[in-house]
Amino acid sequence: MKSKLKVVKIGGNIIDDPASLDKALKDFANIHGNKILVHGGGKMATEMSAKLGFETKMSNGRRITTTQDLEVVTMVYAGLINKKIVANLQSLNCNALGLSGADANCIVSEKRPIGEINFGFAGDIKMVNAQIIDGFLKQGLAPVFCAITHNQSGQLLNTNADTIASTMAVAMSRHYETELDFCFEKKGVLQNMDDSQSVIPVLDFKLYNKLVKESRVHSGMLPKLQMAFDALKNNVSNVIIGDAGIINGTDELCTKLVL
Amino acid sequence: MKSKLKVVKIGGNIIDDPASLDKALKDFANIHGNKILVHGGGKMATEMSAKLGFETKMSNGRRITTTQDLEVVTMVYAGLINKKIVANLQSLNCNALGLSGADANCIVSEKRPIGEINFGFAGDIKMVNAQIIDGFLKQGLAPVFCAITHNQSGQLLNTNADTIASTMAVAMSRHYETELDFCFEKKGVLQNMDDSQSVIPVLDFKLYNKLVKESRVHSGMLPKLQMAFDALKNNVSNVIIGDAGIINGTDELCTKLVL
Repeated sequence: MKSKLKVVKIGGNIIDDPASLDKALKDFANIHGNKILVHGGGKMATEMSAKLGFETKMSNGRRITTTQDLEVVTMVYAGLINKKIVANLQSLNCNALGLSGADANCIVSEKRPIGEINFGFAGDIKMVNAQIIDGFLKQGLAPVFCAITHNQSGQLLNTNADTIASTMAVAMSRHYETELDFCFEKKGVLQNMDDSQSVIPVLDFKLYNKLVKESRVHSGMLPKLQMAFDALKNNVSNVIIGDAGIINGTDELCTKLVL
Repeated sequence: MKSKLKVVKIGGNIIDDPASLDKALKDFANIHGNKILVHGGGKMATEMSAKLGFETKMSNGRRITTTQDLEVVTMVYAGLINKKIVANLQSLNCNALGLSGADANCIVSEKRPIGEINFGFAGDIKMVNAQIIDGFLKQGLAPVFCAITHNQSGQLLNTNADTIASTMAVAMSRHYETELDFCFEKKGVLQNMDDSQSVIPVLDFKLYNKLVKESRVHSGMLPKLQMAFDALKNNVSNVIIGDAGIINGTDELCTKLVL
């Protein structure tokens, strides 16, 4: 029987709120057994860019990563945020290991081809190195990934953190019975976007398609749900979407995805 | 018989010069067997602070690390420089793993007590976790350390890179026959500070003390030499000081330290 593994993604809104982040890290530290954290970036990179005097351009909620942006996200995600999270987890007796995808060649991506939009140094994942990550878990370490990857030719690339979490959970499912938790600022996937309590407790693929068809899924939520269903279809055992309360499993309101 | 390990420290002047850095990383990638890289920060952190509108204060060549400085060095050392080096090494088929001292609890330090000078968030090393680093080497990885450590209570600390390299080499000497290379912009320890070719080929502790007494050692060189002799006295087999040419062992001019 496979051992269990929990892959937890914490989103930008949690990173941006010190109290929420502290609570999420405490709950993450308390998870027994194998665990991996994937963190987004939040507003800090955009704020840093502004301080350095240049503007961040977005398209459909995704950053256009210029050379300058790449330097900023590498500093902020892989440096400031990742190391603060690691030091915080270490103080909670969780032996965290902060990683970018370049470290130990954990996540290989390729620069997104220029289509209608040139996303610049955005990376689409080609490979997650499950074996080396498994080695870290076997050393008793808790890998903490920021959303920076590389192309094996020396180029760092900015990669969506939801995609990293989902692809990571899929890759690790060869070795582990894997649960994937997407934590963000809401209690789950909402029936009614104006009612924060209208959480859909179980969302199956049929209902998801219906909601998409009726344009009842928030545009920022769409890629997250696509990633979540991708994970379920590729041997991830359990996918939960909710606020950071899902990390310790005490949240009564959250969305469980099923096929 | 113990396996061999090379601990290479590259200084700020090498980091600041792209051609020197590329050459140093190529040579590091070509080292056969176990290897660890420790890198300094160079001018980038000071430049970043200036861009963000605050001034870096130094005392005896060492940074006074305010809260703002700590954020900048964490971004620049652990983020930008460390990940660029790791991605570069990965492109050279060297399976680099970028680390701060907080990652996997590799290096524990304590905030320097406030004496005549308050160095702020400067960390003095208490412990190097040789066992976990040995685990990384056994996975075929090449650890790449930036000069950020932590105090196990959630505080990141800015730590001198020469001290990290020396303390690391000493700690690893329990497991390995260790060589420590200090690479900087000069060919070695100079007889005459005005003649860059006047390299002392073999510097023993007696001669070192004589040079110190006669004030013939450059003030920036003093702590490096102290660290170097500390390493030799604590079971490090071989300590070399020179430019990056010493990494591949082809440098004819360099300083070998002996007790």
